Amino acid sequence: MTPTDSPSPDSDPSAIESALSAADRAAGLLRESEGADRAAWLRAAAAALDAARGELVDLAVAETHLPEAALDTELSRTVFQLEHFAGAAESAQILDLVAEPADPDYPVAPRPDLIRASQPIGPVLVFTASNFPFAFSVAGNDTASALAAGCPVIVKANPGHPRLSVRTAQVVNKALNEAGAPTGTFGHLIGVEAGTVALTDPRIKASGFTGSLNGGRALFDIASSRPDPIPFYGELGSLNPVFVTPAAAAARGQQIGDEFAVSVTGRAGQLCTKPGVLFAPAQSPITAATAAAMGDREAVPLLTDRISDAYQDGISRMADLPGARVLAGGTLTSPTLISMPADKMLNAGVELEECFGPAAVIVEYDDPSQMTAIATRMHANLTATLHGEPGDDIAADLVPLLTERSGRVIWNGWPTGVSVTRALHHGGPYPATTAPGFSSIGLDAMRRWLRPVTYQNWPDELLPTPIRTAIKKQNSRPA
Amino acid sequence: MTPTDSPSPDSDPSAIESALSAADRAAGLLRESEGADRAAWLRAAAAALDAARGELVDLAVAETHLPEAALDTELSRTVFQLEHFAGAAESAQILDLVAEPADPDYPVAPRPDLIRASQPIGPVLVFTASNFPFAFSVAGNDTASALAAGCPVIVKANPGHPRLSVRTAQVVNKALNEAGAPTGTFGHLIGVEAGTVALTDPRIKASGFTGSLNGGRALFDIASSRPDPIPFYGELGSLNPVFVTPAAAAARGQQIGDEFAVSVTGRAGQLCTKPGVLFAPAQSPITAATAAAMGDREAVPLLTDRISDAYQDGISRMADLPGARVLAGGTLTSPTLISMPADKMLNAGVELEECFGPAAVIVEYDDPSQMTAIATRMHANLTATLHGEPGDDIAADLVPLLTERSGRVIWNGWPTGVSVTRALHHGGPYPATTAPGFSSIGLDAMRRWLRPVTYQNWPDELLPTPIRTAIKKQNSRPA
Repeated sequence: MTPTDSPSPDSDPSAIESALSAADRAAGLLRESEGADRAAWLRAAAAALDAARGELVDLAVAETHLPEAALDTELSRTVFQLEHFAGAAESAQILDLVAEPADPDYPVAPRPDLIRASQPIGPVLVFTASNFPFAFSVAGNDTASALAAGCPVIVKANPGHPRLSVRTAQVVNKALNEAGAPTGTFGHLIGVEAGTVALTDPRIKASGFTGSLNGGRALFDIASSRPDPIPFYGELGSLNPVFVTPAAAAARGQQIGDEFAVSVTGRAGQLCTKPGVLFAPAQSPITAATAAAMGDREAVPLLTDRISDAYQDGISRMADLPGARVLAGGTLTSPTLISMPADKMLNAGVELEECFGPAAVIVEYDDPSQMTAIATRMHANLTATLHGEPGDDIAADLVPLLTERSGRVIWNGWPTGVSVTRALHHGGPYPATTAPGFSSIGLDAMRRWLRPVTYQNWPDELLPTPIRTAIKKQNSRPA
Repeated sequence: MTPTDSPSPDSDPSAIESALSAADRAAGLLRESEGADRAAWLRAAAAALDAARGELVDLAVAETHLPEAALDTELSRTVFQLEHFAGAAESAQILDLVAEPADPDYPVAPRPDLIRASQPIGPVLVFTASNFPFAFSVAGNDTASALAAGCPVIVKANPGHPRLSVRTAQVVNKALNEAGAPTGTFGHLIGVEAGTVALTDPRIKASGFTGSLNGGRALFDIASSRPDPIPFYGELGSLNPVFVTPAAAAARGQQIGDEFAVSVTGRAGQLCTKPGVLFAPAQSPITAATAAAMGDREAVPLLTDRISDAYQDGISRMADLPGARVLAGGTLTSPTLISMPADKMLNAGVELEECFGPAAVIVEYDDPSQMTAIATRMHANLTATLHGEPGDDIAADLVPLLTERSGRVIWNGWPTGVSVTRALHHGGPYPATTAPGFSSIGLDAMRRWLRPVTYQNWPDELLPTPIRTAIKKQNSRPA
């Protein structure tokens, strides 16, 4: 097959039905598949994406306007993620096996022989992100983690990179087929209607989403109001606040301002972890430093026209905040910095919203207690950052407020630049995500697609193959 | 305090507000509490319940009509559960700690220093079950697991045992206070309105429920449609089908029938794991054996008048099934057995519903393939049971269908009698539960009330106390 030259049409009802029935058939085969086999499929997909690197990165540059170097690195990260999950799939850890023999003397009542193991939940529908056309798209984290867990995946293409989606799906599908994955292990649908139809179909057992608050909430509502509601793992909006104590501002205000500008404008601010607001002392050097650094940066095209339009609406709304001053940008897609006084924010009860793109607000406080007052009523976030100095009282006051309302807290650093590793929790209470206990990054992302099943007094020969294999390995291990 | 003599009035708005604000204040203190302290609180509650055994069991007998011996055992189980979770609270396992040092050579991008640990989700609202006035009520599994995880709990009393609820809450509260738990660690509300108000309050961060499909679904819908949806862990309806192969029926039909009758009528059938339907070969001895055993049993009063009414509606509906024959009972609250032919069930597309109480249906098949045809389209369940013989082909065909649709599968046994242990998964896809990945029994029940947080480049002195303690222990452990 050759890359498509024009965007593909939306999936019609027969294409949707055929993807769903193929995924449904594949689910039974994947449930019986060994983790080592799924690891081989994932590695084949990773190798195929790597081999198609030039073509895929070119398509991504053309469709997303992101810099080639960034996309090249992102493809490497995507390959790494697939290999990372391949390693997890072939370890028995994924089964979370607990075997307890019968015990006639167990407290309260005798215990029968019990084996508990995690099983794939079934076909997973993945709604892809616009801002990571590789790492959170067709072959991104949701897809890789679900396949590793043993779930067939149907990807709903992102309209921001339609050609890349189709082409990536072709590459992945071919690699999976050649590596021996069952037909239906991977599917690809195009169009809003296709996504909604699939999400309401009883054969879909869970869904993952990365995107906007409004879009994600609408899909969460659909998933939750099905006759049989399913888990919907949505990563939605996040403002990623940064709190700077007076001591930190005094010690390194200029540096904080410079680094803040870098974090806000990296990838044109189109990151779910972009810091959208920073709290700084009034008259600190931070505001001027950030404004100067952001004013120096050129406007770059955003991912899509729709995102550009939303950005312009967003910065207009920011400029209308009580007491707002526009310190940089403020027009079209230029990097935009707004400042406003903390007392006006508190008095007007302003609740800042995420503005996707290279924009941020500096909230200037007269008294550090204004930060705790604001933090007390803030929405939850993926991240919260604290710049402080050793022994900072106000930092200690802020810690519990921030921890309670975010999935990751950062000390004297920046929230952008997310490690793909087990200890990195990428999540948080609503509206950061729709499922606060789960991460969409790192090996534990597989947990979203697994559910435990207990086998009571169960004959070995009727256990699923992977569980039988794991028990055999466990029993043959020297004590 | 003395036991209340009359049912307490519904909680008024000021009682609701005071419970919510106390839980909210306690949440921060519990987040900082050591697991060992929470373990002490739980053990104090367990000891206090045990000490009040006579009074509590008497109240339970009067309000639920369950036999004294069963309630006495249930109270022992409840005490055991509290101690079980106490043990888990004081082990560091609950934190699920992952510490990864900074690594400048990490693949794709340098990795910062990361510590991930689970934290309590915040105040939990528990809707209690009518059928386990101790083990799934005021101080039951949901309460014990949430307190162990470090979450304040507000219990919404079950209208089926109002006096027992109030008295248990008094005993628990006194014990927690005396053991040093912060005010607001535990609260108790009465009335439907109080439950709904609390469920929609932003200070409640998660909810647990055990009860009926309709009630649970209504509350799930409320939790999911909040401006900030929260996890709702509901255990709803389950039919718990039993499949008997021709070989098993031939080998031990009489025994299967006798045991089925025991499993259906135990605790007057008021168990979420009661087997509500059994598939047997037509003309097997199972039907007659079950009918004889059930016909011998006397009608006993059910938990509440409402449950009696629902039971009588349920057995009327069962008697109207296509081709149904009433083989035992059929009136008032008497143990009721209905048979119907499998072909009629298939042709009419009958979907059996759970009938809470001592009733069951035997579906008689002419060909074992009718079992797989029915299993293919069956709703999900907490359990599915298979009676077979070694080498049974039809058993092997059924296994994947049953595993896919249940949380626990049982070989040549019965689903009633649930062990409180780690390997016992008590859950399943909807409608068995609203959260297929989670169990409401066993230590993993705590997972429902925890969420991970990552600390990036975080100074030790600003980590929550329990995490600091766990890291210190980990570091001091000999390599």
